[in-house]
Order: sequence, then C-alpha cells, then structure tokens
Amino acid sequence: MLKAKELTTYARLLVQLGVNLQPGQNLAIRASTDAAPLVHKLVEVAYESGAPHVLVDWSDDEINRIRLRMAPEETLAFVPEGKVEDFIRMIEGGAAVISILTPKPELLKDVETSRIATVTKAMGKAMKKYQELAQGGEISWTIGVVPTAEWANVVFPELGEEAALAKLWESIKLATRLDHGDPLAYWQAYANRLEERTAWLNDQQFTRLQYRGPGTELTVELPKNHRWLGGGLKNRQGVYFLPNIPTEEVFTAPVRNGVNGRVRNSKPLVYHGQVIDGFTLTFENGRVVQAEAETGNASLQALLQMDAGAAHLGEVALVPHDSVLSKLGVVFRNTLFDENASCHFALGAAYPFCIEDGVTMSKEERAGNGLNESVIHVDFMVGTAELDIDAVTVEGRVVPLFRNGNWV
Amino acid sequence: MLKAKELTTYARLLVQLGVNLQPGQNLAIRASTDAAPLVHKLVEVAYESGAPHVLVDWSDDEINRIRLRMAPEETLAFVPEGKVEDFIRMIEGGAAVISILTPKPELLKDVETSRIATVTKAMGKAMKKYQELAQGGEISWTIGVVPTAEWANVVFPELGEEAALAKLWESIKLATRLDHGDPLAYWQAYANRLEERTAWLNDQQFTRLQYRGPGTELTVELPKNHRWLGGGLKNRQGVYFLPNIPTEEVFTAPVRNGVNGRVRNSKPLVYHGQVIDGFTLTFENGRVVQAEAETGNASLQALLQMDAGAAHLGEVALVPHDSVLSKLGVVFRNTLFDENASCHFALGAAYPFCIEDGVTMSKEERAGNGLNESVIHVDFMVGTAELDIDAVTVEGRVVPLFRNGNWV
Repeated sequence: MLKAKELTTYARLLVQLGVNLQPGQNLAIRASTDAAPLVHKLVEVAYESGAPHVLVDWSDDEINRIRLRMAPEETLAFVPEGKVEDFIRMIEGGAAVISILTPKPELLKDVETSRIATVTKAMGKAMKKYQELAQGGEISWTIGVVPTAEWANVVFPELGEEAALAKLWESIKLATRLDHGDPLAYWQAYANRLEERTAWLNDQQFTRLQYRGPGTELTVELPKNHRWLGGGLKNRQGVYFLPNIPTEEVFTAPVRNGVNGRVRNSKPLVYHGQVIDGFTLTFENGRVVQAEAETGNASLQALLQMDAGAAHLGEVALVPHDSVLSKLGVVFRNTLFDENASCHFALGAAYPFCIEDGVTMSKEERAGNGLNESVIHVDFMVGTAELDIDAVTVEGRVVPLFRNGNWV
Repeated sequence: MLKAKELTTYARLLVQLGVNLQPGQNLAIRASTDAAPLVHKLVEVAYESGAPHVLVDWSDDEINRIRLRMAPEETLAFVPEGKVEDFIRMIEGGAAVISILTPKPELLKDVETSRIATVTKAMGKAMKKYQELAQGGEISWTIGVVPTAEWANVVFPELGEEAALAKLWESIKLATRLDHGDPLAYWQAYANRLEERTAWLNDQQFTRLQYRGPGTELTVELPKNHRWLGGGLKNRQGVYFLPNIPTEEVFTAPVRNGVNGRVRNSKPLVYHGQVIDGFTLTFENGRVVQAEAETGNASLQALLQMDAGAAHLGEVALVPHDSVLSKLGVVFRNTLFDENASCHFALGAAYPFCIEDGVTMSKEERAGNGLNESVIHVDFMVGTAELDIDAVTVEGRVVPLFRNGNWV
C-alpha cells in the first residue's frame, strides 16, 4: 500500500497531468469498489482543482464474477441504463474520465466464455459513445491502477500474499515515478521528448523499418501518411492530456501486407491466462506463415487463427531498452506497464488514428490504406539490448534509429 | 470482522428472513463501498435463492463527506438521476431492497448543516417513490449493518481501533443472534411474540399513553383505528418480511397535535454524523415549543426546523428495558440497534400503515386522521429503568403497561 501522501501524489498525477483537469471542468471516475482509497484522493484533488462536480461510476469486480457465474442466462445482457446515461451525459458535457484498473488476472477463469461475451457485448453497446469520444481524442481520459492481491500473486508468485502486494505497490510507485521529487514535471518533460520524437518521425515519413537482433531479421513497411503517436493528446477543446502514465512508447501502424522476415519475442506473452514464450514468427507479405512457441504453442496457434487479421501486424511500437520500465525489470503482465518496457508489435487490429484522417475513413478506405482489421489486438515484446533498427526514407536513404536497444 | 461463514449467515438472515426473497424476485442493495464484503455475500445468497437479477446501488460515505466539504454550493443539489431511475424501476417492478449501513457517527461533524440539508432534501425528493413504497409496506425491505473503525471508536473509545472494531462486530453478532444455532428460527419466533402483543394492543384501542420518568412527564394521544406494529410486515403481494433485525419494539403513530408535556432523551441521538445529547423537548398540542440540547444543540434546532412536521412526533415505540439489546448493555449510537434497547419516539413523518387503511388514504385523509407528515423521521430514545407507562381506555380506565422500564 502506498502511504497517504504517495496516494495523493498519484491522484495529482492522474488529475492534473493525466486528464489535465481544467477549472470548471467536471470529472467522471470509473472504478471497482476495491479502488476506493485511490478514488477518494482523486475526488479530493478534483475539487481542489476546481471541479464543480465529480461523478464516480462504481462497479465491483467480485460482483461481476458472481453474476457471471450465477445469474440466469436471460438477465446477463441487462445493463444499468440510467447509470450509463448519467456517465454519458457527463462526458458529452465535457467531463474528463479517469478509469482505475484493479487487475485480477484469474478473476473469470471458471466462467464460460460465451457468458462473458454476452455481458461484454451488452456493456460495449451501451458504452459505445464513450469509446468513440475517448478513441477519437475528443475527451480527456487517463488510466490509473490499484494493485490487488490476485494480481500481485501472479507477478511475484514466489512471495507471500502480503509481501507480493507490497512489492507490487512499490513497483508501481517506481514505474509511475512517484519516487521522483516532482512526478508531474518528470512525465511532462518525458512526454515532450516523445512528442518531439513523433513530430520528427512524422516529418520523415519513413517508408519502412528494418529490425536486426538475435533471432530477428524483419522489414516492416509503413503506410503513406502514417502518424506516429506517443506522449500526450489534445481533446476537442485543445486541452493537452496524457492518456497513459507511465508512457514511454511511440507507435504507429504497419502496412498490413508489408511485413517480411522473422522476429523472436523477448518477454513472455500472457493471453487469456496462458503463457506463450520462446516463439519466432516468420512473415511473408505481412502474414505469419510459420510460428512455433517453446511454451504455450497451442495458444499461439489459436491466437493466430482467431480471424483473417489475427496473423497480421496492427501496431509497431518503439521503446528504448533503457526506459524506466525496462530497467525496473518487473514483468507486470499488464499492458499499461509492460508495453513501456520493450519495443513491441501487436497482432491484430490497427488504430485508425495511426494514419491521417483514418478516424473518419470507412472500413474499406482504411483497408485500402494498408490498415489491418481484426477482433484481436495483442501486444508482444521484441526489444532486447542487442536490437538495432534502421529506417528507410522515400529516397532510399538508411537512417539508424536504434542501436543496442536504444534510440540513436 | 465476522468469519466468512458468519458473514454468510448474516446475509442469509437478511435475504431469506429480512426481505424473504421469493424465487423469481429481483433484489436491490444499497450500500457504501466499505460494505463490499457483506454485499458480496448478499449477492451470492440472492442468486442462490433464485433472484434473476441483483442491482447494487453503490454510494461511498467518504466521497459524500468530501463532496459536502468541498463541492461548490450550486452543485450540491445535483442527483445522479439515471442511477436513481434504475433503482426506482427495480422496486416498481417488485424488487426487494436491502440497505446496508456503515455508520460513521462523526463523518459530517465538520460540515455546515445547511449544506447537509441541501443534499438530503435533493436526495429525499429523488427517492420519494422509494420512501412511499417502503413506508407503505408495499415492497419488502430490510436493513443490515457493517461496522466501521470510526463507529467502533465511538462505541468503545477505551479500546484501540482494532480491538474496538472486533468488539463491535462481536456485539452485532450477539445483537443479531448470529451466535444462535438457527438465527432465522430465533427471529421468526421472536417476531411471532411481538405480533401477539400488537394484536392485543390493537384490540384494546387505548386513547392515550402517559409517560412518567426522570425528566419526563408526557401524554401521547393515539389516533382512532391506530394499529400497533412489530415484528414482520406483509408486502403488497402478501409476502411476510422483517424490516429490522434485531427487532424488539412495537410501535404506532401518535395524534399529530395530541402530545403534551416534556420528555428527556436517555441515549444520544446521532443525526447525519452529528451527536445530539442531553436534551428535553417540551410539547404543546403536539408541537415542540421548547428544546435545548447540552450537546449538538444547533443540529437539534436545524432538525426541528426542517419542515412544518419536523417538530411533531410521528412514532411512539415500546421496548422493554430487559430486551436482548438492552441486556447487551452496549450503546451502539445507532438507531437500528438502540431503538431495540429502549422505548423511543420519532420526530417527523408517521407511517401511514399505523392507522387502518392509512396506506390507501390521500395525504389529506391521513392528516385528518392525525398522522404527521414530514421529510424527516428521526428516532430518539427515552426508555430507562425508571420509566412507567400507563394506557387509558376509551372508557377512561387506566391500564399499567410499563413499570420500571418493563412490560407489566
């Protein structure tokens, strides 16, 4: 557990930099009841920062589990409509949104996937407007986290429950730089550097990246008018916000059929509670034509066969090997943290905002511009201390980007 | 903390006897986030008992406190309308309601009473339909409790926080008879005895009660066709339920303008996180014309001025001084328990079901029959080991009801 003062610092980081709450702006918080100690601090900081109103949209992970296990099938699609309306009304009125995660990796392991799908679909439909506003960058949003005993046990299985939880809090404290004298200034400066980097990358409009490392020899084409993203975004009022803290990656989308060669993973991939590790993927014209994992091979094959887009890349992300998260050396088994520890790719869907005007394009136009489509989007890590990456300009000039795992 | 098994027993008591949940009936639960461990058990037991759907209407005491302290005045009347609608829709559809209290006697001690009044009024208005359905006995409802450190500290100030909380849990376990081999059977039998007593009192149709005790000399007229209640009620489907566990009181409504004399409280009254104690109320023709509290006088005055009915009595309740709760000897500073330890009155609204056909009467008819109306209903304790109560029959005969605090 963080000390009260550290919890307040974390709350400030999320409210004042994460969503960059403006005086007079409302705040909506989404959290499970076990995140209450952090939520209390968020509400306090929000009022201090001049919020007229703070709405907390409570859920409860354990009740979700009980409901998924026990409720009759015909009530699973039931959604608390009024509660959803309260939330949507808030964000349509310009409220910022902070979502607090309380990861429990094995929460639903005994639940039929079809029942999970029913609930997820109904809730996804009810919250569609929120997804649109958030993904379109129209509202300010950010994500925080409160460790749970269940999560700590998966990250530090060798420790007892109490020690594991304490160590996980400590790791999150370091990962979010709450140990720094002024974490807001730290992350603001870090985000500025990421934005300078994306601005430069976007100016360059490299045609492809070339990866070289142990077990890796890969060429990744980038679409025309691709956009690199990283650090902060601006909402529709032009207010700057930082959707992820920590954030150490810059990312864009590759050309769906423009990936060739082979790549070896550098950290285990956890998918639906299954560990996949020690694998190499071989690509031909964007498609994985050969794949073999030393651990969890069946899961890897299932993943690749999920749909037509599952065996293609949808994201390419660059993270230096000397990033804070990488140096911390903890595998969090949670994307918010692990994606900032290593260069990675994602199998599956590309984000539409990774090309110019992608958000307003039709499905067909996006595909025509090279963006991959799939129901999945699964990150896997490839960064090592030996990874070199070159970029190639339109004129064919080779520019070294990464040497020995770090930016040149 | 109760053991998991005892917590399940408590949940069963509330679900299976408290609201007597029927197969196919929905359940709505109202609770603050810190009641989560008991709420989880309630949800589990409800699904086991055949509930198609369970709605949990979460609040958070600490956020209420922060909001009352920090939110700008003009947003205090804001109510999460959609969330309220979800709840009202559930109970209009026949759902039972379990409210879990997490008392924090000093939660709002630093908050201006006018700000508390603004929030209370707005919420009261939004939840009016619920109050009507619950007070009219149309829906099944009951109340449970989860001790908090703050509450424990007020009840057992001489113990350390951990020991105080443990002792409070233990006291609640004894007060609700979770220590009994079959608490459901115990309370069912107890309620049956209370119902025999109310049947006798209803036959007598006494015209008035006369209280005598230290600092007390009070006459309370009873309306024509008044009904004494105690133990269980029946909802509009005719299903028996037990709104309070523990329950050791029988109660009815007085005539709004028929209370004269003075009465001194015997235990502290906690109202919206403020303690009011050491007070005497003087009545003339039903109205409090003089009131003075040694502790929390400002709160008492604010309470009496809440509306036109706040300075009149709405409930008269008889509890023997040798009740389980009384013998337990713990002053819980919480009405759910303390009202079963002591004879008491309530300031504010009378329950319509306390006179024959009161539930189907119009507002005007209820008032014409002597029932008080108000937005508040606040119990205060007057029973002591020295209290004597006489009842007077229609013919003017005096029947001794209580001597030295107990039933004759």
